[in-house]
Amino acid sequence: MHAARLHEYTDDMSEGLTIEEIDRPTIERSDGVLVEVIGAGWCQTDNHIIEGMWDEYVDQDLPMTLGHENAGRVLKTGDEVDIVSEGDQVICHPVQTCGTCRPCRLGETMYCENQSFNGLTIDGGFAEYLLTSERSVIPLPDGVDPAEIAPHADAGITAYHAAKKAVAELNPGDHATVIGVGGLGHIGVQCLDAMSAAEITAVDLKDEALELAEDLGVDHTVNPEKDDVREFIDSVTDGTGATQVLDFVGADVTTEYAPDITAAGGDHHIIGYGGHIHEPAQALVNGEFSYVGNIVGQFSELQELVALVEQDEVDLHTSYYDLDDVNVVAEKLEHGEIEGRAVIRP
Amino acid sequence: MHAARLHEYTDDMSEGLTIEEIDRPTIERSDGVLVEVIGAGWCQTDNHIIEGMWDEYVDQDLPMTLGHENAGRVLKTGDEVDIVSEGDQVICHPVQTCGTCRPCRLGETMYCENQSFNGLTIDGGFAEYLLTSERSVIPLPDGVDPAEIAPHADAGITAYHAAKKAVAELNPGDHATVIGVGGLGHIGVQCLDAMSAAEITAVDLKDEALELAEDLGVDHTVNPEKDDVREFIDSVTDGTGATQVLDFVGADVTTEYAPDITAAGGDHHIIGYGGHIHEPAQALVNGEFSYVGNIVGQFSELQELVALVEQDEVDLHTSYYDLDDVNVVAEKLEHGEIEGRAVIRP
Amino acid sequence: MHAARLHEYTDDMSEGLTIEEIDRPTIERSDGVLVEVIGAGWCQTDNHIIEGMWDEYVDQDLPMTLGHENAGRVLKTGDEVDIVSEGDQVICHPVQTCGTCRPCRLGETMYCENQSFNGLTIDGGFAEYLLTSERSVIPLPDGVDPAEIAPHADAGITAYHAAKKAVAELNPGDHATVIGVGGLGHIGVQCLDAMSAAEITAVDLKDEALELAEDLGVDHTVNPEKDDVREFIDSVTDGTGATQVLDFVGADVTTEYAPDITAAGGDHHIIGYGGHIHEPAQALVNGEFSYVGNIVGQFSELQELVALVEQDEVDLHTSYYDLDDVNVVAEKLEHGEIEGRAVIRP
Amino acid sequence: MHAARLHEYTDDMSEGLTIEEIDRPTIERSDGVLVEVIGAGWCQTDNHIIEGMWDEYVDQDLPMTLGHENAGRVLKTGDEVDIVSEGDQVICHPVQTCGTCRPCRLGETMYCENQSFNGLTIDGGFAEYLLTSERSVIPLPDGVDPAEIAPHADAGITAYHAAKKAVAELNPGDHATVIGVGGLGHIGVQCLDAMSAAEITAVDLKDEALELAEDLGVDHTVNPEKDDVREFIDSVTDGTGATQVLDFVGADVTTEYAPDITAAGGDHHIIGYGGHIHEPAQALVNGEFSYVGNIVGQFSELQELVALVEQDEVDLHTSYYDLDDVNVVAEKLEHGEIEGRAVIRP
Repeated sequence: MHAARLHEYTDDMSEGLTIEEIDRPTIERSDGVLVEVIGAGWCQTDNHIIEGMWDEYVDQDLPMTLGHENAGRVLKTGDEVDIVSEGDQVICHPVQTCGTCRPCRLGETMYCENQSFNGLTIDGGFAEYLLTSERSVIPLPDGVDPAEIAPHADAGITAYHAAKKAVAELNPGDHATVIGVGGLGHIGVQCLDAMSAAEITAVDLKDEALELAEDLGVDHTVNPEKDDVREFIDSVTDGTGATQVLDFVGADVTTEYAPDITAAGGDHHIIGYGGHIHEPAQALVNGEFSYVGNIVGQFSELQELVALVEQDEVDLHTSYYDLDDVNVVAEKLEHGEIEGRAVIRP
Repeated sequence: MHAARLHEYTDDMSEGLTIEEIDRPTIERSDGVLVEVIGAGWCQTDNHIIEGMWDEYVDQDLPMTLGHENAGRVLKTGDEVDIVSEGDQVICHPVQTCGTCRPCRLGETMYCENQSFNGLTIDGGFAEYLLTSERSVIPLPDGVDPAEIAPHADAGITAYHAAKKAVAELNPGDHATVIGVGGLGHIGVQCLDAMSAAEITAVDLKDEALELAEDLGVDHTVNPEKDDVREFIDSVTDGTGATQVLDFVGADVTTEYAPDITAAGGDHHIIGYGGHIHEPAQALVNGEFSYVGNIVGQFSELQELVALVEQDEVDLHTSYYDLDDVNVVAEKLEHGEIEGRAVIRP
Repeated sequence: MHAARLHEYTDDMSEGLTIEEIDRPTIERSDGVLVEVIGAGWCQTDNHIIEGMWDEYVDQDLPMTLGHENAGRVLKTGDEVDIVSEGDQVICHPVQTCGTCRPCRLGETMYCENQSFNGLTIDGGFAEYLLTSERSVIPLPDGVDPAEIAPHADAGITAYHAAKKAVAELNPGDHATVIGVGGLGHIGVQCLDAMSAAEITAVDLKDEALELAEDLGVDHTVNPEKDDVREFIDSVTDGTGATQVLDFVGADVTTEYAPDITAAGGDHHIIGYGGHIHEPAQALVNGEFSYVGNIVGQFSELQELVALVEQDEVDLHTSYYDLDDVNVVAEKLEHGEIEGRAVIRP
Repeated sequence: MHAARLHEYTDDMSEGLTIEEIDRPTIERSDGVLVEVIGAGWCQTDNHIIEGMWDEYVDQDLPMTLGHENAGRVLKTGDEVDIVSEGDQVICHPVQTCGTCRPCRLGETMYCENQSFNGLTIDGGFAEYLLTSERSVIPLPDGVDPAEIAPHADAGITAYHAAKKAVAELNPGDHATVIGVGGLGHIGVQCLDAMSAAEITAVDLKDEALELAEDLGVDHTVNPEKDDVREFIDSVTDGTGATQVLDFVGADVTTEYAPDITAAGGDHHIIGYGGHIHEPAQALVNGEFSYVGNIVGQFSELQELVALVEQDEVDLHTSYYDLDDVNVVAEKLEHGEIEGRAVIRP
């Protein structure tokens, strides 16, 4: 089968991946599921993987097929698979889990002690076929197009996961701030809107992103190149700050907003990871705010997100590309030229 | 009356405060309570105030009487005070609150929008008398000595507040790590022990502190000058890390333990504020841990702590000094020569 | 001033209250607030009070002016009132609280140990003027009509309070069931819709109520006189049941739905109190569901509801009456002839 | 192998089960685990099953081997079992779960949509061997005797599960009340004590049970045959009531304590199921208390309980019997003649 593979870390996105012919994977365990990939979203993290930015955090065995946002059609199943069968359309949670470690028992599948992560630690879905397991697939509701929903497998649940944590702390009258309305941020905005009655402010350097945010239901927008974000949040919140801040950028300049724009007792969620936190401990004590780490959402959160999609609460802005175009996509994303999300159709 | 007052910020602790004679404060509102101070705990924060470290965070009008950990006897009350009367022994929450702003309504008294903070933004209790209000005093159970309990008014509830947040996330089998077993840390250890069944590891540079920690119920101790803290936590937690870390130091070197010793989904609580956080956003994403800010505990938490004290669950290690000795105490603390907590008896 | 007062418990609603002339109350404490009543909602609880149904639960000193859903204009304030002044439009939380007991400290104002309840334990607002306190009034946003918002002071926050508890347990894909779409229920439906992405089913004996529910955003409706409620909920939830059930009726026949329509781990909220619970303990064990009591919402919840109203998330269906018509209103309500909520304009 | 089986429902405990010879079960799935039973606790629920009391709640195919509290030694494992191997000592969670339904994904294993319950819906462990699966066994720490720990597989986690829910609502200074200090209650008391700083009152008709409760750490005891429970709780809680009540009896007479002894906002946990709830809805509204259903604890809670046992926080009071004595045990329990827990050693 055709697959887009990484042989060597590089900063040159124009030649990051190689399209090549490899063997189709085969099912070896009773719970194995082989999926014909229909859509595979391209993620900022794919660029980061190509750059080698994940090498110090996880084990990566190159060459490796990238791609962790997949949806498609079940081709074959292991002997003891019950929940899907050949021909079913599914979305694939990127993490394959054991189901028996303590985190899996608690539903914290992202902390599985025996996990594999598609396209990050094992072969992923920028390929014609993807081998996964029964514990990582969700049947799609009728009428949902796998290619369209694919990016929810990572971008979607990452945004949903952070938004869900934020919503638990947001009462009517409270304020949320979303920094960065790109691939993840535009989903985060919709999740906040569907699941809370909070007032939302979107922050972005691009006016088109802010316009999109307004269409998706935010109450205020601010462009840091034109207005002072700190003063803006101060004025729309009567000086109390935003109870929850979702930072989809995670740059030095955005993490340092926290002491000034986060309400006492509030959270600055780190979702994007473009830079660092540099802050005196005293600032966290004085304002009693937290920097909250956010990983990809759990399996059960992908189920919840699929339910939101089925209710038409979350729209994805996508554009489609062939497998041969993966490096073009990588370059475009690097230059901020992808609107919403790019999806590869292998 | 005699009072120990700050006239000018200085790094020289030997002459930080001046003992002088000022007017006794008078009750002007219907809810005013005038307290004869019996004990006033000296806090690391008092040193920080003298150094001017709080100047950029709050409004300070010098000269000002310091002292925010007070207990004593009610001398006089305003016309509409119901819950205490002359002669009652009380502990004084350091924050005076309005009771009508939104945070007060929610019980989040530390976020009161109209607050005054004894010895930080208004005159405190290193003096013979302290003016406070009905909303800031708690009658003491019989047999509790005001001088002995005084440090709980700040050191106590700060440690309790962080421990309470941690306990909510600690199941039997989980691990907690306490960094710094000093004035606050030795209370934090006892609160964790009384309110959870978690396994506790104490980290400190002083062996005597670690011995105290063992007496107070911790399961493991580690001295960073002798052993590698990361390896130690890894080994006692079978590689999963500590679910909750309470950092009573907050130095650069302690905040950077977080990615290595905190379990996935766990929290590194910032309570001490000796330094900075410098961390790539990616570390928080990869490990999904949070840096959680912790301010002084709420009024209701001081009630809960007084209940713990009444049940003999929390012992304070204190030594007593005269009002004239405040600068001696400040210097001793600066040099790490105060065991447990110093209490001034004006 | 004119006031509608209860002299004797009776089942005859046509002569429940007497309109009479009494002295205007005067401010006696520093935090007193005298409000000129512009709107006063009539509640099912007013009928219950007239019938004597609250006599065994609270102390009632007859004669007493009824009326616990009030909004109006501040006429006078006590010496130390800061948050409102003469001329301000306000909505009045029905409970007057001390602010110093433990529940008040926690924000649990409904559990205040020294509370008075307008129109239930002290004189209420079916009168030209109402005496309350600074801790019980919320200034209205510009453009909000006191007469229109008045029912939110009790009907509104009671529905909001239960909905807020339910929302905390509702994820996308989960189901909520609302039993009874009357004065409270039609607010509950809107709160659920604004604050969650749950699928909602409304249950009512009146088709017009079900039509209103559909207009307000529910996904399914069922009339028990036409369809089997148990089978209906079973079918729309694929056999798992509703995660949260809000029972605004509380009759024997509605509480006994619980074991059959509530999902494992779910809650059957008791808000209406028309009857009893009769259920084997084994049913609660087998299904692990709970019967959850719900009282009027806290002060802070009224703030949140006012925020929802300001955002146009909650509409009230009201009709207006003169003070002289109170007994007419009581009778109409008894016969199910009030649509939405009746508001008295004294 | 020998097994104690139920052929017909009966109220006569002296002939409830028949000891007979049946085939040893064989492993058919890749995750199967065959356990040689070393200890099998006898539970009040076994009596209830014999009486036919569970017939209307679950599917039971008679004859069936009873026994749901098992621990033993692994004899054989399926092809893909990773976490245990032959010879390992294990405790068996009574519920066998699919791992792929939504509740399993959330860690709510007790709500598994495809579950089997040992000794309730399929053959259990009053037999020489028990067939279970990898998802239902927990390896025992060294030094823990399977026969001794067996009752924790149901009695233990049921008590732990309720105690854990209660602890989440108990602050220092709050009160908990435990009704019934028998097989489950004496574990509940220890869990509350280990995991909270609440003040505990035990209620029981037997003075020996109350003495045991005192030994296990409760602060107060009351025997309803000698003192008025309502007055007693009122006096030890200064009139506010118990924040959390754990009712291990669940009789009509104990459920009706709720309105009088439960604090506002508190919970009356139903764990025992000896009778009914009969209560006006108005009582739940007025006191805002809840009747909270409690089923057996989840798999992850059994892990937590094993951790508590390893820390010596929970002692079981057990007596041992042969498999041939099952009916003797059933009769003794019926007459209240079992102290703590009876364990069968097949």
